This record gives sequence, structure tokens and C-alpha cells, in this order.
Amino acid sequence: MKKKVAIMGATGMVGQRFVSLLENHPFFEVTSLYGSSKSKGKKYGDVVQWVLEKDIPQYAKDMVVKSFEESPEVEESIVFSALPSDVADTLEVELAKSGHFVFSNTSSHRYDRFIPILIPEVNPDHIEAVKYQGTKGFIITNANCSTTGLVIPLKALTERFKISNLFVVTMQAISGAGIHGLYALDIHGNILPYIANEEEKIERETKKILGTFDGEFKDFELEIFARTNRVPVREGHTEVVFLEVEAYLPEIISALKEFKGVPQELKLPTAPEKPIVVFEDPLRPQPVLDVNKGNGMSVSVGRIKLKGSTLTFTVLSHNTIRGAAGGSVLNAELAYVKGLI
Amino acid sequence: MKKKVAIMGATGMVGQRFVSLLENHPFFEVTSLYGSSKSKGKKYGDVVQWVLEKDIPQYAKDMVVKSFEESPEVEESIVFSALPSDVADTLEVELAKSGHFVFSNTSSHRYDRFIPILIPEVNPDHIEAVKYQGTKGFIITNANCSTTGLVIPLKALTERFKISNLFVVTMQAISGAGIHGLYALDIHGNILPYIANEEEKIERETKKILGTFDGEFKDFELEIFARTNRVPVREGHTEVVFLEVEAYLPEIISALKEFKGVPQELKLPTAPEKPIVVFEDPLRPQPVLDVNKGNGMSVSVGRIKLKGSTLTFTVLSHNTIRGAAGGSVLNAELAYVKGLI
Amino acid sequence: MKKKVAIMGATGMVGQRFVSLLENHPFFEVTSLYGSSKSKGKKYGDVVQWVLEKDIPQYAKDMVVKSFEESPEVEESIVFSALPSDVADTLEVELAKSGHFVFSNTSSHRYDRFIPILIPEVNPDHIEAVKYQGTKGFIITNANCSTTGLVIPLKALTERFKISNLFVVTMQAISGAGIHGLYALDIHGNILPYIANEEEKIERETKKILGTFDGEFKDFELEIFARTNRVPVREGHTEVVFLEVEAYLPEIISALKEFKGVPQELKLPTAPEKPIVVFEDPLRPQPVLDVNKGNGMSVSVGRIKLKGSTLTFTVLSHNTIRGAAGGSVLNAELAYVKGLI
Amino acid sequence: MKKKVAIMGATGMVGQRFVSLLENHPFFEVTSLYGSSKSKGKKYGDVVQWVLEKDIPQYAKDMVVKSFEESPEVEESIVFSALPSDVADTLEVELAKSGHFVFSNTSSHRYDRFIPILIPEVNPDHIEAVKYQGTKGFIITNANCSTTGLVIPLKALTERFKISNLFVVTMQAISGAGIHGLYALDIHGNILPYIANEEEKIERETKKILGTFDGEFKDFELEIFARTNRVPVREGHTEVVFLEVEAYLPEIISALKEFKGVPQELKLPTAPEKPIVVFEDPLRPQPVLDVNKGNGMSVSVGRIKLKGSTLTFTVLSHNTIRGAAGGSVLNAELAYVKGLI
Repeated sequence: MKKKVAIMGATGMVGQRFVSLLENHPFFEVTSLYGSSKSKGKKYGDVVQWVLEKDIPQYAKDMVVKSFEESPEVEESIVFSALPSDVADTLEVELAKSGHFVFSNTSSHRYDRFIPILIPEVNPDHIEAVKYQGTKGFIITNANCSTTGLVIPLKALTERFKISNLFVVTMQAISGAGIHGLYALDIHGNILPYIANEEEKIERETKKILGTFDGEFKDFELEIFARTNRVPVREGHTEVVFLEVEAYLPEIISALKEFKGVPQELKLPTAPEKPIVVFEDPLRPQPVLDVNKGNGMSVSVGRIKLKGSTLTFTVLSHNTIRGAAGGSVLNAELAYVKGLI
Repeated sequence: MKKKVAIMGATGMVGQRFVSLLENHPFFEVTSLYGSSKSKGKKYGDVVQWVLEKDIPQYAKDMVVKSFEESPEVEESIVFSALPSDVADTLEVELAKSGHFVFSNTSSHRYDRFIPILIPEVNPDHIEAVKYQGTKGFIITNANCSTTGLVIPLKALTERFKISNLFVVTMQAISGAGIHGLYALDIHGNILPYIANEEEKIERETKKILGTFDGEFKDFELEIFARTNRVPVREGHTEVVFLEVEAYLPEIISALKEFKGVPQELKLPTAPEKPIVVFEDPLRPQPVLDVNKGNGMSVSVGRIKLKGSTLTFTVLSHNTIRGAAGGSVLNAELAYVKGLI
Repeated sequence: MKKKVAIMGATGMVGQRFVSLLENHPFFEVTSLYGSSKSKGKKYGDVVQWVLEKDIPQYAKDMVVKSFEESPEVEESIVFSALPSDVADTLEVELAKSGHFVFSNTSSHRYDRFIPILIPEVNPDHIEAVKYQGTKGFIITNANCSTTGLVIPLKALTERFKISNLFVVTMQAISGAGIHGLYALDIHGNILPYIANEEEKIERETKKILGTFDGEFKDFELEIFARTNRVPVREGHTEVVFLEVEAYLPEIISALKEFKGVPQELKLPTAPEKPIVVFEDPLRPQPVLDVNKGNGMSVSVGRIKLKGSTLTFTVLSHNTIRGAAGGSVLNAELAYVKGLI
Repeated sequence: MKKKVAIMGATGMVGQRFVSLLENHPFFEVTSLYGSSKSKGKKYGDVVQWVLEKDIPQYAKDMVVKSFEESPEVEESIVFSALPSDVADTLEVELAKSGHFVFSNTSSHRYDRFIPILIPEVNPDHIEAVKYQGTKGFIITNANCSTTGLVIPLKALTERFKISNLFVVTMQAISGAGIHGLYALDIHGNILPYIANEEEKIERETKKILGTFDGEFKDFELEIFARTNRVPVREGHTEVVFLEVEAYLPEIISALKEFKGVPQELKLPTAPEKPIVVFEDPLRPQPVLDVNKGNGMSVSVGRIKLKGSTLTFTVLSHNTIRGAAGGSVLNAELAYVKGLI
């Protein structure tokens, strides 16, 4: 018997990924799609401007869209949220209060006192924080898309070695800005050297995710300097990382290659076999060729080099699957298997 | 009375920039164009696959191309070289021996004992090294395109402050690979995380250029970690820089804004009024909008930020003008004004 | 003594081209810039999101923007309009009534009874229509950007030969949609097979422009089938044309090469020396290489071929210069020289 | 018991598609991969520069590549050929003589007297021509990638209606030029208005394919005017078609929607359920969204419009699947089911 779930913000970029990833899911069945008021009462297939390479799943086409703008009474106990921040600010909290389990992609509550930023391979124990939220339901967030790709290989390193002084430069895909987030003339054959709030998110989230939870969150100690850029690539965030590490190169490569986490142990449906795919070819990873590794759930790492104690590598991750909807689905799968939902 | 000059490798990307920049030059007049043997005896306008946005200059169209592959007897005393490395290895040396003044873009001789990597705003005194070369003529090289954009703002900083621990990540334009250097399928909507030899060049050249010459070259002391990427941008290399500096932010910004060098003092024809254009708008510099600042000879710097003693900024420079042909022309102008040619 | 002019809609794509093209114009001096109410009272340099490769002209940077939304009292007798259609619908008429000479880029009044769609090389006599408008001032429109590139070579042909059955397929640049007209995700590495209203405009405008005016406009007789597509190119509309013609190929090529019009005779400041640049190389014209021919005012024609009586050729024209702001400036120059303004 | 097959030219663009499409094929098993001499003796996974979004199939990675340049003795009776034309000219003939069944993608033998250009939905009866070839084996070719997308909807029309005077303008993807067929600088943000030999292929192949075979091929009578362009799109050729037709619009739309052929009747493994997917949304088809319809084997048709007797529509087809490797696999499936191989 599958659990019924609602998707909030179903017509947007991340919402479409939810609709797509939850087709034929073994645990969950989508029974409601929520959009803005202007989509209300219309068929999903008629209002969505579908932008994914795979067609709209049959199950979703004729579903009548409900509005998240009008104090919705949500029947499903499980909610995947790709809501706009201003709506998420209050609606996600209300949902949790009224007993819903919210798996959120928005940044609204990532830094709240008892709300985890969960990446099951990295900090599965942070899921315990939901017990402190004091509401019938709970909110679990996932990380910002550029944080996600970074923090998975970092975890593989911090598990075994001491690291410090992290510098990261991102080259982020246009899909990360959402369907209507970027004008063609601004990015065509161009680079934008800045993405609003993105650097702060990477710096703050990374410390929380790599940190501990034992009744309260405690940040991991790490100096982080992030620089984020938008590049003319459709899907896949590339990140160049420098950090100090106390380890030898072969150990480092082993740590990355061998890295596994709870989702792999539990064989969660959306978990990739390998959380990290390591490349020796210096010309990899490339967004066009590698973004879909592990159905978009693996993080690709290449160009691993150690000079003195300075380690450099390049990460590629799928920003709307691993870094957004897929990450939330994995979070829900963990909660499901743990009997929390 | 203008000096006669020859351009070697005139049909390539950098060669075309030479042909374009030397149109109506106040000091120099192009009287010979050299290409590979297969272009020999043909009109330049018929053999060149012209790729610049401005038309082939009228003066060059009907010039009959000579071959650099057949021990050329070069009449002009001044030679601008955009030769392939394997040819430059020996031909540039022979030309210098036979009394020619070679302004080279190739990396063949950049690390030779008495050959300067000259950027007139940065290390004009290195030009003295030519006197030690022991040949009738000489070779002066310019820096790699990605080094050039980096080293100009670095000079502005090192003039006034102590710096250390440099990390740089480049996002380099496709024109930097030359006309036939990159296949469309490899870079269309994609990023290549590696450019062969490029990182070594940045690390090695930067130290030599910022170093001293007093009979021999002595490297500037600096740890440099460079990571180079190819991105789908036509012209303009963007570089994100992190470094340690002992200074306050306002001083740093002043140092960059006020930076001037010998070319500005001497009002060399190709010198930009401002070697560095500083942006406050976080969304600048952008390749499409800013690559032609100062006719492609200014370096644009934006996103300047200081956190603790860690300075970050983003640089944009025109890789085939400032970083290649324009750089060599400026070198020749300096040599001309100094009476060396 | 230069005539004072106002630019309406100065912050948009076409507005920026006006600001740029009118710098140092021999006949006109820009003394007012109009934008929407939200720009009112601010400096142009602070509110414009400048997207042109050449910098904002110095003269415009500090000009205080006025609002076109609040029944403006326009001091200048000459107005260049890049207004949104809904505003142009009424404001352009009011301006003409109150004695202004409006050179418009919007489609609002192109099909009005006495308003010419003027392209000085094609239908200079249509300027006579302004005398019938019955207002103190007048409105002169230019053609849609895709019509303009088509109709110039058509005029060269119809001057000498009989043509019929025109088929045209366009591949239009993203700048044609305006700064905020197209989302990145929609056009990145993609083709949009439709542009709203564009096909109707081409079909209708072409007939009016090639037609006659003698107290009323009479359409040129021609069956036109247009298909318009958006492609990931920054500037320059490419159009593939098929038509029936009664002529031999050498005559056709001569007609295109030799074509000149009134702007060339009168040596209008913005007139290109050659209205049509003809290419023999089958790989030309290309947007990146040829869009700026004649400072963006020449139309490039290539791939000319005749099979039976079916002529085919490919046209490239600069959509925001010749096809928009530059076209209007040329119209105003003609009106100026004819003493109409 | 699967039939053993060899792939010739397995490292190229089309070769890679063969390797990918034949993974787990119900009729065929790939047992040999042939490349040029420089790949000989090496593992496929080591020599191929893989460019597809899906990984190299496991079965192919360790296969040792054989050389097609050294009079190969091919064991498999069935050969899929993506050979370079100059090799195919003679090698395909030799293979047929020595009893092999060659399914070819090259244009070398498309116009030979008894060699069909086979598209199973369009001209399945042309397969009879192989009986006249007079060799133990045979050659069956598929059409050029741009012909294929055109001729499928044309067949749907000619089955029911009389058509004439065809004009077609293509916008072809960069993958159509092969991995090393196009330089980045030539097509980045650009359009190339010409593809060598492509227009002749469309015009000639279309007539042969739509024609009849009864002991000899007889061309379909149709005037065709084709113009081919290269655009910056990764996969998917878009074509705008105009033609004269004697029919009403609803009949035409029905003909396209209802079109089925022999592959659908026989349920061939690679046959798409719908050979033609018809769109009503004027903004479709788009390469990014629709190229993979029917696993890349369906042709998408949109923008269907009738004005007088002139019909226009836009076609999109996957150039390296339906227009290349997938087409050949379908041909082999038909031959297999018919007991010819």
C-alpha cells in the first residue's frame, strides 16, 4: 500500500522533476498537485510548461491542479515542496503544525533551530532533529543545489581525514535559476559572475550539514570561501574545489571511490549505487556527458590532484535531481524506512 | 617613416588579430604575411578563414602569402610571431640570430634564460634581458592568455601590498583554442574541466613576470594553484581569484583603480587609458559586455571582496587581444620607443 | 545647428540602439530620454540594463529619465519611438497631433491609412503620405525586423524583374525578442518554431512597402508564405527565400550588387555604402561574421541559385540596427534632408 | 538464438549509436566492433571518445577493436556500417559479394541500380531490390538524416493526396556533422547557411524513396527545392516544409496522425508506436524537448497550416537515431522478420 503524497509548486522546474521522479515510485503515489491560483482547476498537462527531456508522466496529465495560495486543506500526510520562498515561509510551517511531513526544497527553513538540511549519505542522523520540532508533522529540507554537490565528496573526506580552508568556484547551469529565472540575452554565450545569496548558502549550509546534532545543531569547523557563477549549460553544476587535507593522494582517491552511506546500505529506491563516481580522465566530468550518472543522483569527481597539502578536484552534480527534487525524494525514502512517516 | 614588419602565422586566430591591430599603426607597416606552405603564393584574402567580427583590412587582402616552412629569408627587421610551437622552437631562434626582433606569442621560449615574458604595465624593466641574449636580434615573448589577465591586477596589488597563497580558477573562451582547436560537439552547452599545459603555464609564468631581472631572472615568491576550464564563450577569459593579502579593502580597490604603468606614461598607441577597469556591480564583468573594454586591452575586475585576509575578485580579459596579439604589439611599441628596434 | 530629439522607450533593446546610434549624429542631438514610470527621475546610466557591446555613450549616462506613462509634454519636435505597443497605440497619435514628428519602431500604426512603413532605399516616395495624415506632426514607421532584411533584396529584384510566389523561412536572433522577451531555458541549444504575429507582419508589410502610394497605398501583388523561427544567435536574422522570377542568374546577381537607393544618392549619414553585400562563398553570410556589415545597415545576401525560374537566396540583416533603430534614424535623415522636419 | 552482427566504424557518432541501440537487442548480438587501424587491438572503451548521454554499454567496453582498413575477414553475416564514404565505396561491395548483409549509413551506394534506400514505414517493398543485386549478400542503405525526417510525413500525405512543388529549409544539429566534423568557433552562437552535398541528397533521395520498384527503381515525380543550414543545436534536425496539396486541412492532419507502416504492424522492436507525433501547440516541436519522442524513432510534426492549396509544416527528427543508426537497425529488423538474413 503506497503512501499518498502531494506536490506543492508542481509546475515549476523542481516541481516537474518531482512529478517525473515519483512516477511508479514503490513507496509513494502522487495524488495531488498544487500550483499557483492561476493554475487552479485546470489540468496539469494544460497548465504546465513542461521543460524536461522525458514526457509528462501519464498519471499527471489529467490531474486537476489545486492552489497553494488559498489556505489549502491538504489530504495527503506527505508533502513535497517546491514552493516559492515567500509562500514556503508560512505554509510549510502550517503544514507541519497540522500534521504533515514536509520535504522541502526551499531555503526558507534551512537554518531553523530543529530543521535538518538532510542528505542521507552525509548526515542521516540529523533526521532525529524532527523529533524536537514540537509539531505533529515536521519539515525536512534539502540543501541548495550547489551545496549538495560539494558536501558529498567533502563527507567522504572528513570521514577519514582532517580538512581545512575550503575554496570553491561554481559554474552553475541555467536550469538552476528556474524556468523563468534567467533571460536568454543575459546568458547566451556569456558568464554571469554572481548569483544572489548563493555564496552565503554554500558557506552556511555546508557547515550545518557536516556538523553534528545532539539536541542542537553544531557547525562543522571550516573556513569556506565560495564564488558562484552562471554559465551557459542546461543541466549540471560544476564546482572546482581547493582545500587543505592531511592525507596522501591514494587514500584520498580510495575514500572518494569507496564512499557509501545509509541510502546504499538500505538500498533506498532513489539511491545511486555509487554516491561518487571518480574519473581519471582529466577531461571528465563534463555536464553534457556525466550529469545523468546514477540517474542524476551520483556526484562525479575528477581532476583530483594533491600539491603539498592542497587538494584540488572538480565536482559535477545534477542540480535539479540530486540537488533538488531527487534529494528530497531520497530524504522521504529514508524517513519512510525509518518509520517516521 | 614606419618600420616594416612581418607577421608569421598570419592565417591563424592570433595572426588575424595581428593583421587587424596593425592596420594604420603609427609605428609599424605590415609588408609580409607568412603562413604554412599550403598558403604560399596565394592571396591572403583567398586563403585565410577570417573569423573576426571586423572585416579583413584592405591592405592585407591582396598580399601574397609567403611560407614560414621553407627557411624564409625575412626582409623585415621586426617579426610578430604567432607560429606553431614546433616551428617557433627553431625558427624564432634563427630569426634572432640573423638580426630580427621577434615579438612572439608562442610558449616555446618563455622560460629561456634571457628571454623576457613582457607585459609593459607589469615588468617593463625585463626588456633589459634582451641585451643578454647574445644575438644580433632578440626574442621577446608575451604571456599565456590566461596568465595575462591574472598578472595585471596582481601587479597592482604587489606594488603596494604583500600577497601569498594564490588560487585561480579560469573559465576560458573557445577562441583561445585557435580556429581549429576545439570541436563543436565537445563544448556546445558544455564545460571541459581541463586545458592541457595551461595550469603549469599560469603557475610558472606568473612567478617569472612578477619577479626581477638583474642579469638573471628571479621568480617572485608565491604559491599558485591554478585550475583551467573551457566554457562556451566566444571571446574573453574569466578568472576567479583568491589570495591572502595584508591590506584593507579600500586600499585594495584604490590600488586596482589607480594602477598605471609605463605604457600609459609613454602613451603607447595600443595602451589602454586604464589598464584595469573596476566594477562595483556584482553582475560585472561579463564576457559579452566587457571583453572589449579599452579596445580589448583593459582588464576588467569585479566582485572584489575581503574576508579576513582573504581577497577574492573576478577578472575578465580579452584572450586574443590583450592576451595575445595586442600584448605583442604593445611590447613592440615599448621596444620602439626605447630605441631597441 | 542640430535638431533636438527625444527617445521614447530608451531603456529597452531598441532604445539602447537609438542612444548609441545618435551619439555625435550630424543632424540630431538627443535632449530627452523617456522610460517607464519606474525609471522616472533617475539617471539613465543607473536604470538602464545596458546590453550592447559598446559602452553607454557619455552624453546619456547622466541624463535624467522622464516618464512616457504620464501624458508627457515633449519639448523636442522629433521623437524616436521604441515604445511598447499598448503605449504607442495612443501616445504616438497624440504626439503627431500636437506637432511632433514621430519615427516609430512599433507595429501599432504600420497599417494605418496614411502612415508609411518607410525604408528609404525601397519606398522613399511613400514619405509623401505624411502630408495626408491631417495632423500638425506625423508618424513614420519602419518595418518589422524580419521584413526589413527581406524587402531590400526584393526591391532590387522587382525594380528589374517580375517576381511571384515568395516563400521565406526565418531564423531570428534572440535580441529580436527584447531584453526580457525570452527565457534562457527556452532557447539554449534549441529552436522555437514560432514567433507570435511575426509571419503575418512579414506577409502584410512586404506588400505595403513594395506597393505604391498616390494618395492611398496600394499593395504590391505577391503571394507570400512566411515561417518564422527563433534560434540561439545573439544578433542577426537569417532568412532563406524562394521565389519565382523571370530573369537569368547573372542579371539577378547584378541587380543585387548594383542596387542603390536614395540614401546612397543623398549620402545620408547612416546610409551604408552598399545596401546589399553579395557573397559568393556558400558558407556566407553568417551572423557572427557578417551582421555588422555597413555598420549593421547593409543586408548580406548569399547562396544565390536559380533552378528553372525558382530563385533561392539567403539574407542576413542586423535586426536591432537596420531592422529597428538604425532604420528609424535613416528615415529621420531622409525627412530632414527633404525639409519635412 | 540471436544473430551475430558486426559494427563497422564503431567509434564514430553513428557507430556509437549502433553500439548503444543494439544493447540487449532481441534479434541481434554484437560480436565484433571495427574501427580504423589506429584503434586496432585496443579495447573499445579505451579508444572511443564516447559522446552519448547514456554510458557505454558494458558489453562493448572490453571488446577488442578490429580494423576495417586491412581487408577484414568478417565472421558475422550481418554488418552495420557507419564507414567513412571512401572505405564504404569498395568495402561494402566486397562484403556483399562475400555473402554479408550490409545495413549501411553511408551515401556511397544509395543511388546504385538495385540498392534500396529503405525506410520501413515508407517503402518496405523496396527491400525486394536486394534480390536483383546478384551477390550472395546484399546492401541496404538508409536515407540521409535530413531526408528521413522529411520523407516520413511526405509518405503519410502521398498515400492519400496528390502533392507537388516542395520547398524545404533545414536547421540541422551539430551532431549531424560527426564528432570531428565541425569546429566550435564556426557554429558557436552562429548559423552556417550551407552543408556540402546535403541539398542534392535530399532532392535525389526523396524521389527514389517515394518512387516505385518493380525490377527497377522509378522516381516519384516531384519538384524539390532544399536549403540546408547548420544551427547550434546538439541533436535533432528541424525542417520547415512548404508544398502544394489537393486536400483539406482536417484530412491532412488525420493522415499524419493515423499514419502507420509495416514496422508498426509487425511490431518490430525498434519501431515507434507512432511514426509521426503531431503537435497543435505552435511552439512545438522543439529539439530539446521533442527529439527523443518514440526513443528517437518518431518524427514530430507541428505548425500545420493550409493557405489555399499551400501546406506548411515543421518537422523534427532525431538525426543520429531515426536518421542514422536507428533507421538501419529498423531496416535489419524488417529483413530479419522477412527471412532475408
